[in-house]
Amino acid sequence: MTVRTHDLHYMTLALRLAAKGLGKTSPNPMVGAIVVSNGRIVGQAYHHAAGQPHAEVLALRQAGSLARGATLYVTLEPCSHLKKRTPPCVPAVIQSGVHRVVVAMRDPNPAVSGKGIAQLRRAGLSVTVGVARPDAEALNRAYCHWIVSKRPYVTLKAGMTLDGQIATARGESKWITGLQSRQEVHRLRSSVDAVIVGIGTVLNDNPSLTARRPPGLTALAATQPTRMVVDSSLRIARSAKILTQQSSSKTIIATTKAAPQARRRALERQGIEVLVLPSPGGRVSLKHLLTVLGQRGMVSVMVEGGGELNAAFLRSKLVNHVQLYVAPTLLGGTQSKGVIGGASPRRLADAWKLKQVRTRVLGTDVVVEGDV
Amino acid sequence: MTVRTHDLHYMTLALRLAAKGLGKTSPNPMVGAIVVSNGRIVGQAYHHAAGQPHAEVLALRQAGSLARGATLYVTLEPCSHLKKRTPPCVPAVIQSGVHRVVVAMRDPNPAVSGKGIAQLRRAGLSVTVGVARPDAEALNRAYCHWIVSKRPYVTLKAGMTLDGQIATARGESKWITGLQSRQEVHRLRSSVDAVIVGIGTVLNDNPSLTARRPPGLTALAATQPTRMVVDSSLRIARSAKILTQQSSSKTIIATTKAAPQARRRALERQGIEVLVLPSPGGRVSLKHLLTVLGQRGMVSVMVEGGGELNAAFLRSKLVNHVQLYVAPTLLGGTQSKGVIGGASPRRLADAWKLKQVRTRVLGTDVVVEGDV
Repeated sequence: MTVRTHDLHYMTLALRLAAKGLGKTSPNPMVGAIVVSNGRIVGQAYHHAAGQPHAEVLALRQAGSLARGATLYVTLEPCSHLKKRTPPCVPAVIQSGVHRVVVAMRDPNPAVSGKGIAQLRRAGLSVTVGVARPDAEALNRAYCHWIVSKRPYVTLKAGMTLDGQIATARGESKWITGLQSRQEVHRLRSSVDAVIVGIGTVLNDNPSLTARRPPGLTALAATQPTRMVVDSSLRIARSAKILTQQSSSKTIIATTKAAPQARRRALERQGIEVLVLPSPGGRVSLKHLLTVLGQRGMVSVMVEGGGELNAAFLRSKLVNHVQLYVAPTLLGGTQSKGVIGGASPRRLADAWKLKQVRTRVLGTDVVVEGDV
Repeated sequence: MTVRTHDLHYMTLALRLAAKGLGKTSPNPMVGAIVVSNGRIVGQAYHHAAGQPHAEVLALRQAGSLARGATLYVTLEPCSHLKKRTPPCVPAVIQSGVHRVVVAMRDPNPAVSGKGIAQLRRAGLSVTVGVARPDAEALNRAYCHWIVSKRPYVTLKAGMTLDGQIATARGESKWITGLQSRQEVHRLRSSVDAVIVGIGTVLNDNPSLTARRPPGLTALAATQPTRMVVDSSLRIARSAKILTQQSSSKTIIATTKAAPQARRRALERQGIEVLVLPSPGGRVSLKHLLTVLGQRGMVSVMVEGGGELNAAFLRSKLVNHVQLYVAPTLLGGTQSKGVIGGASPRRLADAWKLKQVRTRVLGTDVVVEGDV
């Protein structure tokens, strides 16, 4: 591949543009594009939302006739296939007159990967692939997972003490972590398609699970994720905040056939969607749940506990990423609530190993994250 | 105070010298000294062990007649009082002919603090106090604690998973942390006067609790800490490694009056010291235990679990420092063994808060430490 001097610079700018779509493009990936003509940026855009124009088309439109002979930087391979709502981008790129296209990564969809690049080359354009690829893959890691597995990318998030406790024995959990951690969690919620909690957390904490802005910025509406409760026997109270509190997002309850019909109908009359899912062993099949969410175009979800749901997701091998906000405190106590509950593994070798572990200081806390 | 250009430089060197005494000077502090004449180091020494000459005396001896008009850097205020085994240093400093003395910190012993400095000034020497004081205080933090409280400085150390587990429900704990963490723990053991474990840990893990060098370096003997077991009812097996394995250090068992006399006598016949301590609530009083160890000149101890002993030390407010080796794994399970056991605190506000928290990467693990 021919990498020129400024390729990495422009691609980094394009990736920064792409990231502006965070939390808004599902089920599409985030994409940014820049058109550079004689060392000058003559077009730049990002993909705003599904159904809206793709980034490269917007950037080329902005460049107009200046696109002739220019270089197009785009963070993802331009699409060659007819999408549901938008025409393919490759013909528009060819017609624009750009001479060279620099692509950060191929389309991760195995059905079309590489086809857009091949079409561009057949049309005589010079194409460079792989500039800033690791950053591009990281940006759209959720999308890449979803397009291949058909299930959303799962982040397990918890706020806990240094000894792994998320609540006292009686369930007191407000607040273990500091203000900055809690604010970051609200931003995280804005970036995913759904947040999922267990019924124990709803009964105990009665959370609203909305993505809130810091005080003073409430006028700026945050993107609201769908709120999900896993509640095998429909124990949720009809007055639970998650059901009654106003939000631009809906609440879905995942349950089993064993749940009382009357409760299910009552919830549905309240306007709540109840998903009845297979239940091997009496518990909601989380794999089926994620398959349904994936079919609905949910690309990323965040699991927010409690310990039993966290353990169930890990045991089902459905967690992709763990993000822990760790307060510098020790709670102790054999009856306190740990971040991962469930049955105790028989052997140490059964522990889940995190890869790509990163730690950083956030206010008074330390954030530890890693891939499962 | 008059701080000259090179004061910090020479004091840092003196502190580095002092640190060579780590684990060997108890109950004395670590001290380093440097004599500088016309920009040249003409004497340098550190305190090797209790009963041996003090650092400033050694450094001045080395300097000989070159000490006349020179500057003495010493990491701790020279002693003015008659010690048990060595003559006071202040007269030797005055007789050496040095014109100036730079001291990192005052003697932390409230009975004598400042007296040595006053004597030097009365003799006409120029004295500067406080150069690199934070580093000097950190180096001898255990000694400073012991000299004031009469009890050893307590470090609670554990190797655990990211979710705070130190063993499976059945007690499997080898190995949670990586090789580099375990090697550092052996060096830590060499630096303290005693390691303390609970009887549960002995029955379950059968540790030898010696400070071992990495393979290939076994010929270099590590300083061996005294090994202590808290065993309220003398459940220890006579064949426990901690009792039978050869080591240059002794093993002491702390127990209560309720322990069977016959077992106590059997252990004593085996050459093991058994300390019978007050036992409010049927458990060994850890405060009494530390008072006895302090009286014996033990300046620092390390508590190495299990969860019940760790909790008891924290509840007794006897822990000064926490040092956790955290593996990037999640064990989970409500019956797994947590790093801090005991009764669960009623309120979140009862959690122990760590101050001065530091994190660092060590091999595959993260080390988190802080003061309680």
